[in-house]
Amino acid sequence: MEKTINQVNQVITPAELLKHLQGHRELTRKTIEAFPEKELFNYSIGGMRTFAEMVMELIGIAGPGLQEIVGGTPGELVENFEHGNKKANILKEWDKATEQINRLFPQIASDRYHDVVMIFGKYENTVWSSIFYFIDNEIHHRGQGYVYLRSLGIEPPFFWDRP
Amino acid sequence: MEKTINQVNQVITPAELLKHLQGHRELTRKTIEAFPEKELFNYSIGGMRTFAEMVMELIGIAGPGLQEIVGGTPGELVENFEHGNKKANILKEWDKATEQINRLFPQIASDRYHDVVMIFGKYENTVWSSIFYFIDNEIHHRGQGYVYLRSLGIEPPFFWDRP
Repeated sequence: MEKTINQVNQVITPAELLKHLQGHRELTRKTIEAFPEKELFNYSIGGMRTFAEMVMELIGIAGPGLQEIVGGTPGELVENFEHGNKKANILKEWDKATEQINRLFPQIASDRYHDVVMIFGKYENTVWSSIFYFIDNEIHHRGQGYVYLRSLGIEPPFFWDRP
Repeated sequence: MEKTINQVNQVITPAELLKHLQGHRELTRKTIEAFPEKELFNYSIGGMRTFAEMVMELIGIAGPGLQEIVGGTPGELVENFEHGNKKANILKEWDKATEQINRLFPQIASDRYHDVVMIFGKYENTVWSSIFYFIDNEIHHRGQGYVYLRSLGIEPPFFWDRP
């Protein structure tokens, strides 16, 4: 495949970064699905949070964080919502975030990745490092979810199985 | 701080990507240090590998992978070395990799990030996505190490505490 001019001059293009982010989010979705419904909301190791609680944090970060980057309006970190201990409700919010991210991401002007932004009133970083943080934090917690699954005798999805 | 021309036109520059990688590696180093020596080599959950085994995989990937990207000579994935169950020996190899990475990374020409490379004879990807894989895989396993630590009653280093 021929490289585009953008690709020749960039480590990673904005479109590739979006795809990378959504690839990770798709793998996290599979990880949520792999949990039995009860353990998703009740199981944890070493006094840590349940995987549902970690996932609610992730849902609270990526979409709303992008909304702040794009819109410039200060937002708040909300790490909880009503789920009634139903996996379907977690997945529904997950999928809403997927669409929100697909809609917002292309609105980041390509020359803004080194602008400094404040997110949730306290995290001040460049646009790129904020987005990298969303991804890194998700990988971090998903890796923890993998240990929960393994300790429950469940095989997690393949780590490298991302689009 | 004024943005450089490179920064204006890039999502992330090669120098920033190196710093990002080494920031993660520094956090992983702190995580290795947080393990008691015995548990580093003996402890695991759910039939998974010990954290020492995961770390040897990480050491086997980033430095040698970059060597292949830069040198173009086919290499092999080696995930083991003689450590005599000593944490100091793991850290010594870790620090050698840190220097190797600092030496090799700037040798990647800036227009090569979208070239397709084969690593360890089987992973064919662009240069950028290979390097992102090194980082993502490290975050993934370090997150698992955090669960090991928590289940041992040890507080892991702060996730966001990276340079």
